[in-house]
Amino acid sequence: MGQPDAAQHEPVDFETHPSKYKHWKVSHDGPIAQVVMDVDPEGGLRPGYELKLNSYDLGVDIELADVVRRMRFEHPEVRTVLISSGNDRAFCAGANISMLGASTHAWKVNFCKFTNETRCELEDATDNSAQVYVAACNGTTAGGGYELALACKEIYLQEDGSSAVSLPEVPLLGVLPGTGGLTRLVDKRKVRRDLADVFSTTAEGVRGKKAVKWGLVDGSFPRSKFEVAVRERAEVLAKQAASGLGDEPRVGISLNPLKIEASEDGNHRHYSAVTFDCDPETRIATLVVRGPSEEDLALVEKGPAALHAAGDATWALRAYRELDDAILQLRVNHLDIGLVLIKVECDVARTIAYDQALLDAADADKHPGQPTWLAREIIGLMARTLRRVDLTSRSFFAIGEAGTNWGGNLFELALASDRFYLLDDPDSPVQVGLSPLSWGPLAMSHGQPRLAVRFYGEPDKLEGLQGKFAAMSAEEADEAGLVTVLLDDIDWDDDTRVAIEERASLSPDALTGMEANLRFPGLENCDSKIFARLTAWQNWIFIRPNATGPEGALTLYGRPERPRFDWERV
Amino acid sequence: MGQPDAAQHEPVDFETHPSKYKHWKVSHDGPIAQVVMDVDPEGGLRPGYELKLNSYDLGVDIELADVVRRMRFEHPEVRTVLISSGNDRAFCAGANISMLGASTHAWKVNFCKFTNETRCELEDATDNSAQVYVAACNGTTAGGGYELALACKEIYLQEDGSSAVSLPEVPLLGVLPGTGGLTRLVDKRKVRRDLADVFSTTAEGVRGKKAVKWGLVDGSFPRSKFEVAVRERAEVLAKQAASGLGDEPRVGISLNPLKIEASEDGNHRHYSAVTFDCDPETRIATLVVRGPSEEDLALVEKGPAALHAAGDATWALRAYRELDDAILQLRVNHLDIGLVLIKVECDVARTIAYDQALLDAADADKHPGQPTWLAREIIGLMARTLRRVDLTSRSFFAIGEAGTNWGGNLFELALASDRFYLLDDPDSPVQVGLSPLSWGPLAMSHGQPRLAVRFYGEPDKLEGLQGKFAAMSAEEADEAGLVTVLLDDIDWDDDTRVAIEERASLSPDALTGMEANLRFPGLENCDSKIFARLTAWQNWIFIRPNATGPEGALTLYGRPERPRFDWERV
Repeated sequence: MGQPDAAQHEPVDFETHPSKYKHWKVSHDGPIAQVVMDVDPEGGLRPGYELKLNSYDLGVDIELADVVRRMRFEHPEVRTVLISSGNDRAFCAGANISMLGASTHAWKVNFCKFTNETRCELEDATDNSAQVYVAACNGTTAGGGYELALACKEIYLQEDGSSAVSLPEVPLLGVLPGTGGLTRLVDKRKVRRDLADVFSTTAEGVRGKKAVKWGLVDGSFPRSKFEVAVRERAEVLAKQAASGLGDEPRVGISLNPLKIEASEDGNHRHYSAVTFDCDPETRIATLVVRGPSEEDLALVEKGPAALHAAGDATWALRAYRELDDAILQLRVNHLDIGLVLIKVECDVARTIAYDQALLDAADADKHPGQPTWLAREIIGLMARTLRRVDLTSRSFFAIGEAGTNWGGNLFELALASDRFYLLDDPDSPVQVGLSPLSWGPLAMSHGQPRLAVRFYGEPDKLEGLQGKFAAMSAEEADEAGLVTVLLDDIDWDDDTRVAIEERASLSPDALTGMEANLRFPGLENCDSKIFARLTAWQNWIFIRPNATGPEGALTLYGRPERPRFDWERV
Repeated sequence: MGQPDAAQHEPVDFETHPSKYKHWKVSHDGPIAQVVMDVDPEGGLRPGYELKLNSYDLGVDIELADVVRRMRFEHPEVRTVLISSGNDRAFCAGANISMLGASTHAWKVNFCKFTNETRCELEDATDNSAQVYVAACNGTTAGGGYELALACKEIYLQEDGSSAVSLPEVPLLGVLPGTGGLTRLVDKRKVRRDLADVFSTTAEGVRGKKAVKWGLVDGSFPRSKFEVAVRERAEVLAKQAASGLGDEPRVGISLNPLKIEASEDGNHRHYSAVTFDCDPETRIATLVVRGPSEEDLALVEKGPAALHAAGDATWALRAYRELDDAILQLRVNHLDIGLVLIKVECDVARTIAYDQALLDAADADKHPGQPTWLAREIIGLMARTLRRVDLTSRSFFAIGEAGTNWGGNLFELALASDRFYLLDDPDSPVQVGLSPLSWGPLAMSHGQPRLAVRFYGEPDKLEGLQGKFAAMSAEEADEAGLVTVLLDDIDWDDDTRVAIEERASLSPDALTGMEANLRFPGLENCDSKIFARLTAWQNWIFIRPNATGPEGALTLYGRPERPRFDWERV
């Protein structure tokens, strides 16, 4: 069977457009959008498997992520997004098993991470953009299919004698539901844990009224009334969502394709505000992000209407879409890169002013009748992109060498990094400056701002930094606790070289586990449980012979042989 | 190299006594106890490795757990426990690497779990028994050695040019510090995450003032003053701890050896209140727990002084020590058992009355001048034993068949189980009754009572149960939401048989992961992060070739060859 990973195949492209969709149909009716999943069985991203019964692979999910993102930017008038199926028999049968069975461990892990992020984006749209997702489960809703529904605010199930929700992974495949299902069952929907246990080990799932009683779905309707009943509910939800919003104009902007110059081997990608270079030999990548220009600042300072007129050319939207793409490229197409050196080039004071202007443009009270929603969406996209950095299983060192400067939202890249090396040289001063966005709007996936995480043990230091949005010298930044290692120009070259070489020499697995444990101190939430706990268990199970060995359950699924388990409980 | 697991060796005995210690020396001086780690290099639990430099194996940790437990029951006068080393060069070098390298995956995982629980017990003693643990790190404090120190309330490091604290697992062994180190660094001690990153990848560790500055230790003293300075600090802490306590008499009781009748093959263990039977053929065990007698109840109702006079013969102390032992036996000596059927035999009203009397006997205000500490310690032991059940990677079904009854603290065993099957048969009534201990004192390791976890999504139901401590019929219990599956006598045999057979047929790994995710909804704390997140990542790393393959870092440690990594980051 083919191994659908980067080594043997074309690199994955995360950019897409509705005109290219193979698997989703989106239609609009004022505040209600209908998103129909109708997976092309022959449209898999890789050869060797058929996407039967609305099962999905990474390609299907890349399109879904695009749907969710464009809904926010291109259709801000939408209040309810109704997800249903165009397949006769299945709402969605989950991740394609043949694809999973034939995939490398790395591909499986990356696939799960991306699909998890997409589901979190969908919840984020419900919570923060008043775009409420509703799952209309007309047909089998199994595994990843039910997990997609679980990410929606409400779930409705058709009563037809066959439509059931289920998580058959444990009984049929010997793996976990890998897209947040277990966590969302007990932590989001608060299904009783013993019922969740029964449900998660019952391959055929639960139907109709029982599914409602157990809290697995929010309602069920007979087939004859299903479409109308769900539509009615969507209208109610749309009204509720709209009632919390002001009457500002909500006309979408277009997200045009990113402009990318890429080398043929994929190791160099140059965007307008981002440059990404991989060196396969040293297994080190360099990611340069460039801050806003004077014109970029002037534009956002003109206010919401000007921002809206500029559309996707606005620096923040452009730069973070590019950064997001670069991070996804890194994860899936450059598995051998262990360490990313981040470098930020910006005018510190200007970037801080940019953030202040962006926050101002997001304030509906200050700009009655103007499209302030766009600035809020841009800030949300920035936050989600930075979260992707936190959740990327590569080491990140922020390298504050001569020529860099770290201001405003871009300083978050230093806070997101595992270490921040900063040059203290009066001949080549490097500046640092905090952003008003760093105190909440750009919070990590567990809900904590990166600054609060950094000063979890030193609340006084955090307090002392409040409201300080001026440029600091390297020494001042170090004094404030913002720097890992401050080096003068004499030590810079040797010390950073040694640190980089050392990091690149360590066990990649141990680093992945270590970073996952050190990056998220403090509180937890549903998202962080999914990425930290569920993911770690799934990674373990994915490489246990009981799942993926020659006689493992995942390997043998669909074949006549029964799996053979090593019964030792660990 | 030998594989130190149960299949090839003598079963592990978790019972020990100070007279048998090989590795620890305990001395007492009023409120201060000195616990000296002085590991016998030849005293390993299994052949094939030498416990150099105060490194430890499971046997060393079984003794430490015994020290901690006896300190609470036998030496309630102790307020500060000073842990130091009797080794010339090392405070503690951590888990023995040769032992780990030669161990099976299951042994490693069980070893880590037990050592983690021991460190949590030590923290629990500090928090809840006013027995404050202090680490006096006189010498190398590496890996598990520093993790032992991290579990102490305060850590002092000797300044001598060589004593350093370190977590060298990632750089030297390609695995994580497996005993809570990463979590306690950033979540308990709140060390800045970038400094934690540098520290956790620096094999040689951090010494003296820098360790203090980074928050890795609480103080450092030159060798010449170390003993005196730490002793002085211990006295201050002892006074502080004592100031919060009343003046009740604190004279210890003796924890005598458990009386156990065991079959030669180890599959049957009969204790006074617990019977444990394993059937290797079906891979199912049965655990029967018997409640208190009339005499047991009468004793505890006499109050704290009578309870103290009865010592370790008291039902609750006896039954839960036995249960604890049975769970540990299950985990380490019966790896093939996948499902445990729990059955409780008790008088429901009497067991509830027992719990009320025990709570009363723990109330210092009600019994001035009497040894109420003992009842509090007994309740604490009950809680920790139940936590061990929650954290055991086996499925638990509570089987409420004819002849069982589920009252008071023993109903917690149904709440801790993954499912509760209950017979509803007027000819053989089975009763259920809640305990006043279920509302807090017996909380799970993430701090939530099992009842609150059960009704996480139904707070009204939880509210409605408050103060209801009378026996309920099976039907009433089901109505209240306390039962997973209620069955009449016609369905009982078939339905439970099918459920049990199904469970025993599922992938043991998938069940382990599923249970770890479903059992702990709601809030998280440091303990649950250690057991859920850190453990899962470590389990994954432990079976990755980069750690334990023929060229893995753990396999090759101490040999001239360098490990060879698969550099793919996952």
